Amino acid sequence: MLTDQNPLPSTIDARLRAQLEFVVEVDRLKTVLRQSPLAAADRRENDAEHSWHLALMVVLLAEHSDEPIDVGHTVKLVLVHDLVEIYAGDTPLYSDATDQQEREEAAADRLFGMLPADQARVFRALWDEFEARGTPEARFAKAMDRLQPLLLNWMARGGTWKSPGVTADVVRARKAVIGEASSSLWAAGRELIDEGERRGWAAPGR
Amino acid sequence: MLTDQNPLPSTIDARLRAQLEFVVEVDRLKTVLRQSPLAAADRRENDAEHSWHLALMVVLLAEHSDEPIDVGHTVKLVLVHDLVEIYAGDTPLYSDATDQQEREEAAADRLFGMLPADQARVFRALWDEFEARGTPEARFAKAMDRLQPLLLNWMARGGTWKSPGVTADVVRARKAVIGEASSSLWAAGRELIDEGERRGWAAPGR
Repeated sequence: MLTDQNPLPSTIDARLRAQLEFVVEVDRLKTVLRQSPLAAADRRENDAEHSWHLALMVVLLAEHSDEPIDVGHTVKLVLVHDLVEIYAGDTPLYSDATDQQEREEAAADRLFGMLPADQARVFRALWDEFEARGTPEARFAKAMDRLQPLLLNWMARGGTWKSPGVTADVVRARKAVIGEASSSLWAAGRELIDEGERRGWAAPGR
Repeated sequence: MLTDQNPLPSTIDARLRAQLEFVVEVDRLKTVLRQSPLAAADRRENDAEHSWHLALMVVLLAEHSDEPIDVGHTVKLVLVHDLVEIYAGDTPLYSDATDQQEREEAAADRLFGMLPADQARVFRALWDEFEARGTPEARFAKAMDRLQPLLLNWMARGGTWKSPGVTADVVRARKAVIGEASSSLWAAGRELIDEGERRGWAAPGR
């Protein structure tokens, strides 16, 4: 881990030291690049920036959830949801990767295993909840995870919609999960995709 | 604003459109550079990465608060606390800037003014609460804001502690605010500074 290069003083209490080592280790999330182009600069987004953006969106857009949600809990889900990519890497939405789950499970064991056991369980539970989408909070968190790059692709006049093999129908299919959390946000998302298709930013139909 | 370059479809409901325009606008936070060097890469940190890191630290370290805190509310404070820097820029901790408050107030009016009025008030109140440090949540949020770069400077074997005019005593004085929220975190922070001084990573004494 990163602090192996420069260990924290051993005079710090063991539990707190493990927590601070984890704080340093997750700095790596800032180096995991996503496919999405930023709206504000000519470069790709990283996972830490993305996670902050989703968390702010939860606070801002919670009123659009079709079911009542605990905003604080939903924010926790998005803060944690990409941490496993520190060791597993980002898997682009429009990819055919088949080993994603296996890689991410191993990464979760490794990363959360650095924490005190009680907190390892809490963080693992947050990640599992996000992935399973079995709660209103997890469904809304996932909707943010799909809506945010949609907005960035809109601002980039296509962005990853222009990847080989991707059409407007493919985009609609991958983004439809937004509708499991919010009919109004999915309506807006569809308008962005439909208009993008009309403007040629995504290939028509199939 | 950024969406002026590529307006969102006017068919999207006005309130939601204003919210989504704000979501796009705050993408700019990813371009505001701080002084802190990353632990995981050879570059400086930006405000969005920093804000995510603080939010995760709140979740992880809340048990160290000397007073009970609402974790979800504290997370909101750190998610929002640097937004004004989108227009006001980052003011380094070890600077002598005297116009920071004025610049940031103007930036807050401009940025939060993009939101529906009820949400503009909520976001402004979160920012004001963070700045005033009058609540346990704001004090803990501020402690995270001081502790995180301390850890990054440790990993960089000095980092901004090596800025002109900065000594270990100056660092201790600027970081003492951590102790207003958490005696255990401030004890750990002092150990990092003391050990850094012993190793020559911060200039001794005054």
